[in-house]
Amino acid sequence: MSLNSLLSIFVPKNKVFYELFEKVADNVAKMGTLLKNVVAEPDFDKRAMIISQIEDLEHTNDELTHSIFTELGRNFITPFDREDIHYLASSLDDIADYIYAAAKKINFYRVNPNDTGMQKMAELIEQSAHQVCIAVKLLRNMKDMRQITEALVKINSSENQADDIFDMSIERLFDTEPDAKEVIKKREIYQVMEIVTDKCEDASNVIESIIIKYA
Amino acid sequence: MSLNSLLSIFVPKNKVFYELFEKVADNVAKMGTLLKNVVAEPDFDKRAMIISQIEDLEHTNDELTHSIFTELGRNFITPFDREDIHYLASSLDDIADYIYAAAKKINFYRVNPNDTGMQKMAELIEQSAHQVCIAVKLLRNMKDMRQITEALVKINSSENQADDIFDMSIERLFDTEPDAKEVIKKREIYQVMEIVTDKCEDASNVIESIIIKYA
Amino acid sequence: MSLNSLLSIFVPKNKVFYELFEKVADNVAKMGTLLKNVVAEPDFDKRAMIISQIEDLEHTNDELTHSIFTELGRNFITPFDREDIHYLASSLDDIADYIYAAAKKINFYRVNPNDTGMQKMAELIEQSAHQVCIAVKLLRNMKDMRQITEALVKINSSENQADDIFDMSIERLFDTEPDAKEVIKKREIYQVMEIVTDKCEDASNVIESIIIKYA
Repeated sequence: MSLNSLLSIFVPKNKVFYELFEKVADNVAKMGTLLKNVVAEPDFDKRAMIISQIEDLEHTNDELTHSIFTELGRNFITPFDREDIHYLASSLDDIADYIYAAAKKINFYRVNPNDTGMQKMAELIEQSAHQVCIAVKLLRNMKDMRQITEALVKINSSENQADDIFDMSIERLFDTEPDAKEVIKKREIYQVMEIVTDKCEDASNVIESIIIKYA
Repeated sequence: MSLNSLLSIFVPKNKVFYELFEKVADNVAKMGTLLKNVVAEPDFDKRAMIISQIEDLEHTNDELTHSIFTELGRNFITPFDREDIHYLASSLDDIADYIYAAAKKINFYRVNPNDTGMQKMAELIEQSAHQVCIAVKLLRNMKDMRQITEALVKINSSENQADDIFDMSIERLFDTEPDAKEVIKKREIYQVMEIVTDKCEDASNVIESIIIKYA
Repeated sequence: MSLNSLLSIFVPKNKVFYELFEKVADNVAKMGTLLKNVVAEPDFDKRAMIISQIEDLEHTNDELTHSIFTELGRNFITPFDREDIHYLASSLDDIADYIYAAAKKINFYRVNPNDTGMQKMAELIEQSAHQVCIAVKLLRNMKDMRQITEALVKINSSENQADDIFDMSIERLFDTEPDAKEVIKKREIYQVMEIVTDKCEDASNVIESIIIKYA
């Protein structure tokens, strides 16, 4: 917060938004990778350590998002439409929130590190978050539209794949898990992971609406 | 997409939005009717065929919604407030998404075609979606406000009835279904069906806010 | 509705919004207190009576929210940004909706009045709703920013506490409740109560974005 406030004095207003969004995007990509590590980690103490790293990133992200909204309130001139800044900041914040929520639930319910459905979901989340990061960073110089579009197509493709993995995993869960309480727990984790890919798609949609206006 | 892009060259900008919204509204109404057919269909193969029709309509709808957002990015002049176009397109898209989600779950969990609670929910969804379609089409000539208002009142009434059916169905489910896994499955379907009527009400609220401004 | 329409003739436009928001805020605070009473009430007939009071307040709130949107459609000049009025009205309406939903579920599932987790959640909701009411009322004379900020900090703190209570309660629920159907019921109530505190935080965020612009 104070660092960003300081920055806003020296940096032309337009650049403040890009810098904040890029930091958020980097955080989101890191969180995606850490979530994949959480799922695969067999040692539950080490798992807890990764989750505390995710928690720290989530807190930093909250502060960055808060700074974006503060800058939005302060500045009349913004690099792209105010409503798009609002939507983009919200959707990136949602990605971070749901990654953290998924990590907590995976730890809390002591998920088996060999659960292939969850591993696949975590891979798709990592890929989506990484492409969101790429697309956000390309907004600063809206020159290479093809590159942005490629990232957006990959995000949407991951979301579709996550839907299929979700459906298959839930089907298998109901068929193979006799304990209803276990069904509730695992289904909840799958749902939260699937929401992460939805939120990546939301971010992708906002980015698309930004580039349409500036095309 | 390409058809709509082509259209936008020949048709005055204002009309593009009406045409896209009317196509979406027709799709949504069709999907409502097909969902009712899914619930009532005793033959599970035929059920799967109806669901693939719903899936096709949902994909078409995604493209139409995408076109609305593209046009919104391209055009400075719009027939009603930009934010209202955004909200209306989003809420109609949500109706289609949740109808498709409900249809998939009904098939996936092999719901009994004689489930009266679900039949009643499906009837309310069909009615709501039909009234949403009527209200959207009346936006082109905002002359007969009484007719639009009648449609909106019917949508809100269906939403209230769906709430009551939902509460009663869940109560009966907990009382009569001994298998917790079955409770989870059916409760999820009821929830998704109830959300469809909520989304119809969201669309109704946007339409109301549009007609207030142009009254 | 008719009272508010009448009011809008005599009262300068700006004040209409403050008056409507203050009525909504009072309602929301009352509903928070009644929800705490619902949880603690051992007599299930008396519980039903409190819930019908909550229902009445929720209906009044719906009408007030509707009036805010109607005024927003009618007036070009508003005391703060149109989108902020929209978001604030929506988030306050959501608080009321989820308090009512929680109350109905507590009654419906015949929750034990001695459930300490739910009592603690209800206390946090009451406090949050009360601070939301204070913050909304301070918007009329945006002089004492410190007082508004204090209310917002308290709302965010309650939301964090509610998250912790939620996690602990769900952990205990899975550990101690052998009946999966009971797990489903209680988990749903905790979820809805936790959403109430989220919606209070949403309202808090909108209020913050309003005061930043007018600081």
